[in-house]
Amino acid sequence: MPTGGKADWLALRLRQAIADGRLAVGSRLPPTRVLAAELRVSRGVVTEAYRRLTEDGHVEGRRRGGTVVVAAPAVPPLAPTGTRPFRRPLTVTGDTVDRAVPGARFTTGSTADRAMPGALFDGEPGADVFDALRAIRVRVDFTPGQPDLAAFPRAAWLRAERAVLAELSADNLGYGDPRGAPRLRRAVAGWLARSRGIRVEPEEVLIVAGTAQALTLLHPVLRADGIDGVAVEDPGSLGTRQHLRNGDLATPPVPVDDGGVRVDALRATGARAVLLTPAHQFPTGVVTSGERRRELLRWAQDGGLILEDDYDAEHRYDRPPVPALRALLADRVCYMGSVSKLLAPALRIGWMVPPPRYRDALTDAKRFTDLGNAVLPQLVLARLMESGDLERHLRLLRGRHSRRRDAMIDAVAEHLPGAIVHGAAAGLHLTVTYTPQVPDTELAAAALARGVKCQPLSWHRQLPGRPGLVLGYAAGPPGVIAEGVAALGEALRELA
Amino acid sequence: MPTGGKADWLALRLRQAIADGRLAVGSRLPPTRVLAAELRVSRGVVTEAYRRLTEDGHVEGRRRGGTVVVAAPAVPPLAPTGTRPFRRPLTVTGDTVDRAVPGARFTTGSTADRAMPGALFDGEPGADVFDALRAIRVRVDFTPGQPDLAAFPRAAWLRAERAVLAELSADNLGYGDPRGAPRLRRAVAGWLARSRGIRVEPEEVLIVAGTAQALTLLHPVLRADGIDGVAVEDPGSLGTRQHLRNGDLATPPVPVDDGGVRVDALRATGARAVLLTPAHQFPTGVVTSGERRRELLRWAQDGGLILEDDYDAEHRYDRPPVPALRALLADRVCYMGSVSKLLAPALRIGWMVPPPRYRDALTDAKRFTDLGNAVLPQLVLARLMESGDLERHLRLLRGRHSRRRDAMIDAVAEHLPGAIVHGAAAGLHLTVTYTPQVPDTELAAAALARGVKCQPLSWHRQLPGRPGLVLGYAAGPPGVIAEGVAALGEALRELA
Repeated sequence: MPTGGKADWLALRLRQAIADGRLAVGSRLPPTRVLAAELRVSRGVVTEAYRRLTEDGHVEGRRRGGTVVVAAPAVPPLAPTGTRPFRRPLTVTGDTVDRAVPGARFTTGSTADRAMPGALFDGEPGADVFDALRAIRVRVDFTPGQPDLAAFPRAAWLRAERAVLAELSADNLGYGDPRGAPRLRRAVAGWLARSRGIRVEPEEVLIVAGTAQALTLLHPVLRADGIDGVAVEDPGSLGTRQHLRNGDLATPPVPVDDGGVRVDALRATGARAVLLTPAHQFPTGVVTSGERRRELLRWAQDGGLILEDDYDAEHRYDRPPVPALRALLADRVCYMGSVSKLLAPALRIGWMVPPPRYRDALTDAKRFTDLGNAVLPQLVLARLMESGDLERHLRLLRGRHSRRRDAMIDAVAEHLPGAIVHGAAAGLHLTVTYTPQVPDTELAAAALARGVKCQPLSWHRQLPGRPGLVLGYAAGPPGVIAEGVAALGEALRELA
Repeated sequence: MPTGGKADWLALRLRQAIADGRLAVGSRLPPTRVLAAELRVSRGVVTEAYRRLTEDGHVEGRRRGGTVVVAAPAVPPLAPTGTRPFRRPLTVTGDTVDRAVPGARFTTGSTADRAMPGALFDGEPGADVFDALRAIRVRVDFTPGQPDLAAFPRAAWLRAERAVLAELSADNLGYGDPRGAPRLRRAVAGWLARSRGIRVEPEEVLIVAGTAQALTLLHPVLRADGIDGVAVEDPGSLGTRQHLRNGDLATPPVPVDDGGVRVDALRATGARAVLLTPAHQFPTGVVTSGERRRELLRWAQDGGLILEDDYDAEHRYDRPPVPALRALLADRVCYMGSVSKLLAPALRIGWMVPPPRYRDALTDAKRFTDLGNAVLPQLVLARLMESGDLERHLRLLRGRHSRRRDAMIDAVAEHLPGAIVHGAAAGLHLTVTYTPQVPDTELAAAALARGVKCQPLSWHRQLPGRPGLVLGYAAGPPGVIAEGVAALGEALRELA
C-alpha cells in the first residue's frame, strides 16, 4: 500500500477511536515515532495521518504537550467490520490515555462487546443504570430524551455570553436570589405564555437545575403536606419512579390508554398526588384527550395534586402543542419544565411553577440545596429567550427532528414488520411494541451487542404489558437511523 | 444653573440610582420628554445627562426599546447628603422600572432608611436573613464572604468559553457524569495538589454546586452512618449552622481559642463529627496551630469525622497557606472547597473529596439532586485552571485584597479606638470586637441606617462572648473602606 493509502487508513481508524471514545477528548496521541514502530510503518505515514486529523479539527498539536484529541465527531462514522489490518493490537500508551481508558486498545470490535450488555439488562435496574448505559459507546444511539445536540446553537450562546459579561454588574457575581435571576424568571414567564399557554408572573417562577432537582425540592414539601406517595403513569418513566422512591414516596401505577392516564384507576389508588406527562406521555407518546383533561381537572379540584412534567411538549410536529394543565388550574398543578430537550441536558436549567401554597417552602429548599442556580448561564438563556434565538433554534430542531422521525417510522415498517409505532405526533422518541415472545430486555441486550443503544419498554413499566423498545430519533441523521433499526430487526429475527 | 451644570447634577443622581439598585440593570429610563417635564428642566438637560451615562457605559440607547440601564458601577459613588435640588420627588415610570422597583423614587436618603434595618437584626435570624440583608442596597458593603467581584476575569472567562464551545463534542452536551466532568476533576486534583497540599486522584473528586450543596448531599449520608449531630466552632458560621439544622443534625458548639477549635471541648460534646474551617477560622480568622492540628488528627483517628470547609484558604497574605487537614488523614476527613472566594459565588461550582467509604452514596445523592453540575461552566473553569489564568487571577486578588485589609486595619485603629482586630493573616474579612456594652446587633442596625452593611458577631455565636462585627474588606477600594469604618465609629460612639 502506498504511504498515502496507509495514512488514509490510519486516519480513519483514529477517527473511529475518537468517535467511540476509546481516544477521549483531552487524551494525547502516542508520539509519531512510537506509533510508527508499533505499527511497523514509516514515521511519515503517522505524521500524515495526524496532519489529516489536525485539518479536520479532531486533534491539535501542542508544542510540549504532543498531539492532543480536542473534538470528537458528532456522529460516529460507521465502522466497516471484520477488518483487522494491524499486525497486532496496539496498546496506546501515555499518561492521559491510560487514565481515561485503562488498558485502551485499538480493536475492530464494538466497545459494547466489552461492556457486558447482558448484565446491564438483567434484573431490576439500579439508580446508576442510565449512567452505565451512557458510558457505553456505540454506533447508533437511540437513547430517548435528548434533542439533536449537534445542532446546539454554539455561536448564539457565545454571542449572548459575551453580551452578558459586558453588561453584568459586579453585584450579579455575588450570591444571588435563590429563586433565580429576575431577568430569567421574566423571560421564562414570557416563554411559558407564548409556547405553553401559561400566564404567570415572574415571581411565581422558580429556576431549578432541571426536573430531577424539581422533584428533589418537592419531596420534603410533599411529605410536610401529608403526601406519602405519588401515583405514576404506567408505562411511565423509570427515572422519575426511581427518583420518587429515593425520596421515600410510594409510586402506585395507573394505566395509560389512548386518551391518557385512566382517571378512574387514579381515583382507585387513593393517592393524593400524581405525576403526569400530559402533553406527550412518556414513553407511549399519548397526547391526553380533552375529555380526559376535564376528568383530571375534576380529580384535582376534589383535592388532588398534579405534578406536570412538561418535558418535551414544545416538540409537536403537526399542530401547535396542547396547552399545559397548569394553564387551567393553578392551585392544584405544580408545573415543571426545562431546557434539556430544547437546548441541551448539560445546561441543567429548568423551572417550576408551583401552587402558591408551596412557593416559600420550595424557595427555602432551593436555598439549602445550592443557594440558587449559577447566574451566568441563567442570563445567557434569558437573552436567547428575549432575542428570539431560542424560538429560531426550536423551529430548526422541529424540521430536523420530524425528518428523523419519518425516517424511523419508515425503517420500522421495513425492518420490524408487524411492530406498532406509538406516539409519533410529538416529542423526540417513538415507542415500538412487537408481538414475538421475546423479552424486550433480551432484545435491547442483543441490540447493544450489535452497537445499537436503546431502552426496553419494560424498564418503564410496573404493570405487565407487551414488550417494546423506546427509541430516540433525535441524535442521528436518517441514514444512521435506518441502519440502527435494520440492526434491531436482525436482532429480533434471531431471537424470535 | 447653566444647562451643563444641571446635566452634571442629573447624571450624578442617575448614577447613584443605578449604583444602589433603584434603577436596576435591564430597566428603562423615562423618555427624555417625560423626565424633562417632571423635573421642569429643558429636554436638552436630560438628553445631555443620558449622553454622559451612555459614554461611561451605564446605559445604552436601543431604538424602540428606549434608553436602558446596562451596567451598574462596581462601587457606588458616595452620595453627598442633605441636598434636595429636585423641586418634587420624581416618580420613575415605565413598565420595566415599575416591575423591578415598585413605586421607585429618586430620593436623597439611603435606601436602607426604607428597609426597616431594625427588624432585620431583631431576634433569632431566620433562613432567609442573608437574602434579606443582600437585598438592601447601601453605600458601603462589608458583607463577608466574597472576593472583589469587580476583578472577575471576564475576558479570560469568555476566551475559555469560546475555546470550550469550539472543541466540545456533541456528546458533552447530553446528560453527563453526575460526579462532574472528567476534565474538571483532573484540573481540581491538580489545583488541590499545587495550592492545598492534597494529593488525590481525579476519581476521588466530586464536583458540586458549592459548599451548601456539599452539606446537603452529606446530610443523609451522615445520618445513614449513624451520625445525628455535627459539632461546630464557636464563634462559627451562622449559615453553616442553619444548614446543618435544616438537615435535622444537632450542632453542639465548641469554643475556639487562639490555637483553633478546643479539642478537649470537642471530646466533651461526644459528637462523632465536627465541621471545621482550620485554615482560616470563620469568623475569628484563627489559623489552627500545629499542636492543635495534631490533637485534631488524634481525635479523628479515634473515630471522629472532620468536615473541612476550606472556604478561603487560598487568600493568605504573608506566607503560603497551611496545608489542608485532608492532606494528612484521608479516611477521616471530608474536604470541601469552591470557587466562590476565588472567582465568584454566582458560578456555583465547588468540590468535595470525601472519605472513600462515602463516595458512592454521595454520587447517588448528587445524581438524584440534579444529575450533576452544568457542563459548560465546568469545562471553562477547567481551562482556567489548566492555563494558569486562575493562578494569575488569585495573585492579582491577593495584592488588591491585602491593600484593602491594610486600609481597614488603619481605619479601625483611627475610628474604633480600643477595638481588637482578629484574623488579619488570611481571608477576605476581619472580625473586630469592642468593649462598650452595646449589643452588636444594635450596632449593625445603626450602621445599616448609615448606609454601611456588616454582620454582627453574635449571629455567629451560640455561646456568650464579646460583641463584635464581621467586616468583609474585599468589595471596595481603600477610600470607601475608610469611609465605612468611620461611619461605624460614629454609630458606636452614638450608642455607647
